[in-house]
Amino acid sequence: MEHRLWGGRFSEPTAAEMRRFNDSFRFDRRLAEVDITGSIAWASALAQAGLISEVEHAELVRGLELVRAEFANGTFVAIESDEDIHTAVERRLRELIGDAALKLHTGRSRNDQVATDMRLYTIGIARQLDRRLRDLQLALLTQAEQHADTLMPGYTHLQRAQPITFGHWCLAYIEMFARDRSRLRDAIARMRVLPLGAGALAGNSLGVERERLTELLDEFDELAANSLDAVSDRDFVAETLFACALTGIHLSRLAEDVILYASSEFGFVELADAYSTGSSLMPQKKNPDSMELLRGKSGRLLGNLVALLTVLKGLPLTYNKDMQEDKEPLFDSFDTLDLGLQVAAAAIATMTVRRERMAAALDDAMLATDLADELVRRGVPFRVAHGKAGQLVQRAIALGTSLRHLPLSEYQAVEPSLDASIYAVFDMAHSVAQKASYGGTAPQRVREQCARWHEILEEEDE
Amino acid sequence: MEHRLWGGRFSEPTAAEMRRFNDSFRFDRRLAEVDITGSIAWASALAQAGLISEVEHAELVRGLELVRAEFANGTFVAIESDEDIHTAVERRLRELIGDAALKLHTGRSRNDQVATDMRLYTIGIARQLDRRLRDLQLALLTQAEQHADTLMPGYTHLQRAQPITFGHWCLAYIEMFARDRSRLRDAIARMRVLPLGAGALAGNSLGVERERLTELLDEFDELAANSLDAVSDRDFVAETLFACALTGIHLSRLAEDVILYASSEFGFVELADAYSTGSSLMPQKKNPDSMELLRGKSGRLLGNLVALLTVLKGLPLTYNKDMQEDKEPLFDSFDTLDLGLQVAAAAIATMTVRRERMAAALDDAMLATDLADELVRRGVPFRVAHGKAGQLVQRAIALGTSLRHLPLSEYQAVEPSLDASIYAVFDMAHSVAQKASYGGTAPQRVREQCARWHEILEEEDE
Amino acid sequence: MEHRLWGGRFSEPTAAEMRRFNDSFRFDRRLAEVDITGSIAWASALAQAGLISEVEHAELVRGLELVRAEFANGTFVAIESDEDIHTAVERRLRELIGDAALKLHTGRSRNDQVATDMRLYTIGIARQLDRRLRDLQLALLTQAEQHADTLMPGYTHLQRAQPITFGHWCLAYIEMFARDRSRLRDAIARMRVLPLGAGALAGNSLGVERERLTELLDEFDELAANSLDAVSDRDFVAETLFACALTGIHLSRLAEDVILYASSEFGFVELADAYSTGSSLMPQKKNPDSMELLRGKSGRLLGNLVALLTVLKGLPLTYNKDMQEDKEPLFDSFDTLDLGLQVAAAAIATMTVRRERMAAALDDAMLATDLADELVRRGVPFRVAHGKAGQLVQRAIALGTSLRHLPLSEYQAVEPSLDASIYAVFDMAHSVAQKASYGGTAPQRVREQCARWHEILEEEDE
Amino acid sequence: MEHRLWGGRFSEPTAAEMRRFNDSFRFDRRLAEVDITGSIAWASALAQAGLISEVEHAELVRGLELVRAEFANGTFVAIESDEDIHTAVERRLRELIGDAALKLHTGRSRNDQVATDMRLYTIGIARQLDRRLRDLQLALLTQAEQHADTLMPGYTHLQRAQPITFGHWCLAYIEMFARDRSRLRDAIARMRVLPLGAGALAGNSLGVERERLTELLDEFDELAANSLDAVSDRDFVAETLFACALTGIHLSRLAEDVILYASSEFGFVELADAYSTGSSLMPQKKNPDSMELLRGKSGRLLGNLVALLTVLKGLPLTYNKDMQEDKEPLFDSFDTLDLGLQVAAAAIATMTVRRERMAAALDDAMLATDLADELVRRGVPFRVAHGKAGQLVQRAIALGTSLRHLPLSEYQAVEPSLDASIYAVFDMAHSVAQKASYGGTAPQRVREQCARWHEILEEEDE
Repeated sequence: MEHRLWGGRFSEPTAAEMRRFNDSFRFDRRLAEVDITGSIAWASALAQAGLISEVEHAELVRGLELVRAEFANGTFVAIESDEDIHTAVERRLRELIGDAALKLHTGRSRNDQVATDMRLYTIGIARQLDRRLRDLQLALLTQAEQHADTLMPGYTHLQRAQPITFGHWCLAYIEMFARDRSRLRDAIARMRVLPLGAGALAGNSLGVERERLTELLDEFDELAANSLDAVSDRDFVAETLFACALTGIHLSRLAEDVILYASSEFGFVELADAYSTGSSLMPQKKNPDSMELLRGKSGRLLGNLVALLTVLKGLPLTYNKDMQEDKEPLFDSFDTLDLGLQVAAAAIATMTVRRERMAAALDDAMLATDLADELVRRGVPFRVAHGKAGQLVQRAIALGTSLRHLPLSEYQAVEPSLDASIYAVFDMAHSVAQKASYGGTAPQRVREQCARWHEILEEEDE
Repeated sequence: MEHRLWGGRFSEPTAAEMRRFNDSFRFDRRLAEVDITGSIAWASALAQAGLISEVEHAELVRGLELVRAEFANGTFVAIESDEDIHTAVERRLRELIGDAALKLHTGRSRNDQVATDMRLYTIGIARQLDRRLRDLQLALLTQAEQHADTLMPGYTHLQRAQPITFGHWCLAYIEMFARDRSRLRDAIARMRVLPLGAGALAGNSLGVERERLTELLDEFDELAANSLDAVSDRDFVAETLFACALTGIHLSRLAEDVILYASSEFGFVELADAYSTGSSLMPQKKNPDSMELLRGKSGRLLGNLVALLTVLKGLPLTYNKDMQEDKEPLFDSFDTLDLGLQVAAAAIATMTVRRERMAAALDDAMLATDLADELVRRGVPFRVAHGKAGQLVQRAIALGTSLRHLPLSEYQAVEPSLDASIYAVFDMAHSVAQKASYGGTAPQRVREQCARWHEILEEEDE
Repeated sequence: MEHRLWGGRFSEPTAAEMRRFNDSFRFDRRLAEVDITGSIAWASALAQAGLISEVEHAELVRGLELVRAEFANGTFVAIESDEDIHTAVERRLRELIGDAALKLHTGRSRNDQVATDMRLYTIGIARQLDRRLRDLQLALLTQAEQHADTLMPGYTHLQRAQPITFGHWCLAYIEMFARDRSRLRDAIARMRVLPLGAGALAGNSLGVERERLTELLDEFDELAANSLDAVSDRDFVAETLFACALTGIHLSRLAEDVILYASSEFGFVELADAYSTGSSLMPQKKNPDSMELLRGKSGRLLGNLVALLTVLKGLPLTYNKDMQEDKEPLFDSFDTLDLGLQVAAAAIATMTVRRERMAAALDDAMLATDLADELVRRGVPFRVAHGKAGQLVQRAIALGTSLRHLPLSEYQAVEPSLDASIYAVFDMAHSVAQKASYGGTAPQRVREQCARWHEILEEEDE
Repeated sequence: MEHRLWGGRFSEPTAAEMRRFNDSFRFDRRLAEVDITGSIAWASALAQAGLISEVEHAELVRGLELVRAEFANGTFVAIESDEDIHTAVERRLRELIGDAALKLHTGRSRNDQVATDMRLYTIGIARQLDRRLRDLQLALLTQAEQHADTLMPGYTHLQRAQPITFGHWCLAYIEMFARDRSRLRDAIARMRVLPLGAGALAGNSLGVERERLTELLDEFDELAANSLDAVSDRDFVAETLFACALTGIHLSRLAEDVILYASSEFGFVELADAYSTGSSLMPQKKNPDSMELLRGKSGRLLGNLVALLTVLKGLPLTYNKDMQEDKEPLFDSFDTLDLGLQVAAAAIATMTVRRERMAAALDDAMLATDLADELVRRGVPFRVAHGKAGQLVQRAIALGTSLRHLPLSEYQAVEPSLDASIYAVFDMAHSVAQKASYGGTAPQRVREQCARWHEILEEEDE
């Protein structure tokens, strides 16, 4: 009969298909590093509590470092009974250091152990994603700085609305990713609560001082205050998956914009060949695959969040095996974003901006609001001014012309007080420059924001 | 520069991280078998259209079978430029048979090719899941037959409601899985529509007769009637993922019941050791991990469905690279259920039923409806009878006794016409036997349903 | 103390906030019609079983029809104790016909009653949605017929790929909605299984013949074969919600295309004013709000599906109050699509197609595949031909010209055998006409498909 | 033709079904209060910018307060052209104060207006939910204090694991809801960024000083720094919906535990009649409907989150009408939790705890870990001790007895060094008292945590 760690009371072996269904070593082996870090802290706490001798303690640390090295250099060899990373590490530890290994799990359960591992690991990936988001912000910032006064149409409802600058567009995404980073950091703060020592569910009865553990494990600054909750809680995974999902939504919006702008019809940008692919049939095609994949992968990020929340729904306290399903969604969302954010940053950095196509897409109707604003400046109440501008737009369409070329008589038919000075409105750069309130698209405002972000992002280097 | 199939117009190579992000060979290699089957049919159609010679045709078939064999026996060696299964097969084909391989992709695009592959593959997995569901039905049926008259409490709101038989409980799940199978079969019927020959999106201009292709590919009985839709449609994946998700919900309900029944408090069943696991800390524990995992995995099945539908949301026609995200959710849902259904069937088959614990859980209050029914038989309108029975229950609680032991005077206080014959109601087996309308829990009805299912499930063998 | 139908054993009234939380009359009152239909059938079965007299039967039917009329003409007055539609109908029935009403619920539970109501109601809405989908297909068909040979660019990856016809585009969506209808009809078939007579969970003990009920209720052609499953099953709601969600995805794709095509950059279509709205600030704006809402509402349709599946996850048998959460998602998805499909059909029917803008968007690079196909016809293996066409595209870009204007010398540099006859390839109408295999975009094929759909959709009228 | 605020350029009226599809007044009327608050601030900023006179300013404020009063006292009468709350308020304002109303929308768009309204409203509901969560924590705390040493079985995998106290169980949920509150507060902090003045998308060109607006609107402490992002961002809604969904998951776990504990099989608690309901058929039933609904409503909370994220997926910048779909999910999640949390608090507060049933459910096998721990104290390495305890459990099962009654000879067969002192382990209170490390279930620790929470929750009153 196999050697599973819990087999004392069992008389039949686990069925083969059950092992495949149950065993998690296939995917949780990536927890090796954090599992060993946690075990070393635990060994130290056991020594302090007098549950192991100093010699045993030293042996455990030595052995655990050997196992860590095997994982690090790829020489760790799994065997069939390694149902999960915890079992695998403990089994190998015993092979390496002998009976001292039998004492490592004293007063500890896989329940508090895996909760600790998962927190340590999740803190690490949240930090990594935060850095990747910063790199993407930097790529956007570089484009923003180069295009602080590059004019382009701004859209609402995908209809041309008002002229903006491309730099302003880049900054909008920097704001989104800043919120994503802020959410990750809030999640990390809530993650730094240590479950180790909570035992299977009820706490620890062998006198291990949990307080010492937060000193040994820097990532934690607080102890879980309720042992039942400590082993049942996967909020931190859910929160990270949500942060990933919302980042995915932001990437899908960025991607949608770039895909539109890279189409022949818009023609505002061109992706580098390195971030595009071609067609197996149509020789002329250059497809924005990088952006399409970024857009599409929002699906799996949302799916992973739904998966975990559904797993947790209706589970009684405390640990239930269902919770093993927390790992694969988390790992997948991390892998997806870790790579996706790199691709996004590089694709944005290498993207060519076509100023002339952007400029050509600016049409006079986009200045109808400026026209209304000008009427307001001349004393017409806004709601009336909006109506008059609307009539002029309709008139221009009817005559097959643009606002700029509509005769003065038409203007006067709608608002008798007007004279030729009204045509001064039709200047795109002027329109943009006037959006000068805080957060507006005026190049001066865009440059201010670029400077602000430069400072913020650079500070983080220190 | 690398050799991608579409590189003619490109001047820069694909970036390394973009390749990792873009390439799908890692997961779509499992389409090898269906991809080659589709290509052999295509080669035949090319020959018939005179686009390749008979010699070339024979070479292509020979070469494709060699590649198929390499995948089958594990000797296929991927190289870095194999971005997906289609590219990999074509690359290897050329190495094996030389320039004839250059003609295989004539008039075909990866768009219609992958749509064909995915349909073939999905038909296969839907059939496989249908068989697995049947095995689970058979396991439940065996238990149902053995326990057609094993009494147990039936629950609503997890409160004891009325006595039922355990066989009846088993049959309830057989019904659920029957609907799952019916949904899979409807999905398969809609899947058997062939996209091959739709080209990239517009159809085929080299005179390949698509009609011939449905003859060559048995799994298809109809041609896709619109080439744009043919390459854009992933409904069949969504529908399969939904069928899997709903099966997952059913399994989660089955699992919940078994987990409850396996608790010390219920004690109705005991899982075999082979489908249970123990605790690394608590030596006495025997946990129903198989059932907990089945319950938990409903999360990923729902997540995969959400993932795909989110991917498809808002995509313009026709093919977009986002759609590459159809594969991993499908493969994961299949793998999850393919194994999960085996575990479920085996765990149910090997589960011990504790008749005595079930019997002990039957209490008289569960016969309050029988009491009301008896009052109805004696002429009391149901709504009044229900009220009287309710008062008797309340009275029994107040006196700390059961309905059976409540003195006749109490019965008469509530309904003066009653005499001692009313106590005949308190017979669990009698209560169950009376639920004899079609679909009821009466053992005779349960046996009828067992026989019906026996016939249905056996017929499928033929 | 209030008069709830189940209060016999209770000694405290329901708390006010609990009533608001629990009571469903607010939303389930729309089941009045089907609830009464079911009750009339039930009364008939009670009479046949001898549980009520013919006089009582007649009274019940008369009374129920009076209640039905009150709901129909809006005169039904709810009172506080009407916790749900079933309670409200029975309470009012008693007011109208007196004590005969006390017998209606004999042998029936709200569990089998509400399951019956929901099936009847869901069959009705599925049929209604099927008709709405047909109306949308008809609107698309009318446009398809008018534009069977209107040329436009076909897109993959939102890049111009090959010329197609607008009629072909319309037909693609007709195919999608046809699958949606097919799914609804499969769902209806599975819905026509009658739970009535299953009682609370165990079946019926008063001798009511369930077989008779399917004769009385035309919508059902089969009896639920397991009473536990009969009251627990909400698969039919889940399946309908899935069908709605996938229809929503299709509408989101249609909407995305129309939004793109209605942008200034594409300019292919213009929505009628009646299906557009303006801006409160920008006078020139005409926004495709109808399409944006259609696209956006895919979210709630998916959300409703997720809501129900999450509700059902992990529920033990049989009925649990959680299942009351089946109604609002279903009603909301129905209302959303019932109106949304009308808007979609009308917006498509009234949409102006701009042939000239479509034609202007066709550029020569879209014929690169035709060029490659022509090389294939002249004996160049496809993979080689694809590469040569790609080089020519790259050459044209480099020289700032189009394929049509690339000098013959350039062609000959790439493929020496070419002469001036190659320029015949550059004819959009010719390209389209050549896509003449089944399902292709050739106008003749488009017209064939229009005729086919005409016949299919007209047949349904009969 | 109707009077919509944007109709200047339109020549056809909006279709009736389009109005129903488009108009949001039905559900966004609940924004009246915050819309008017925002408008009053805007009027003040217009006055300061010299765009309206002081007299006009006073009139606007007076009129807006009149409209606010009409909404507050229920006298506001909507008319057909009131497409949304913004339109309705402006229309009514004009009726009340005449032409001054025409100037209110100067320099403002519904895009920045609704973004401001939604943030104000969402801050309000997040604060309200935070208070409701506190009330639920208080209800749990009261139970925890009363049951700091009430023994009960603690469960993992729904198997009895180790004895705990009921107070400890209550505290576990207090921890969960504390995290929920922490998430809401983080979300609020991110919400306090003011979009007003961002215009339709590009910013403000009439010289309105946005800085002044944050002074006028206390809820905001920062200005949105990018106008495009300001009108496109719905992260704050997504984040609130996520916080609600995760709270819903916690409630579903609480509900699951209570439903289990209220079953006859567990019998640990009894809900008050006021939070239970009965059966229309089965007179004896007392169902935990309040808890079932709490559990079930986790579905809609998750559905609402999925709905919004799906809506946002792939939207181009900036505002798109799809985003109107942000409101109903938010309002529904708020309403659901606002009521659900009240029900939960009251049901917990009025729940009866059955100490004797809890005590009766403690069996000796739950002390197997204590046995192993005792062996550890006597020098047996943990892994060996665990195995020996497992053998003893198996032996007790085989002999049909409990650990306590297993003869000493059996103990000695497994571990020869043991003597009768080992039986001292079998004391539930002692076991619990030993779990005395921080966060453990020892009554002293439970009381400490109660005190800590008392202090935390009381401090909030000040």
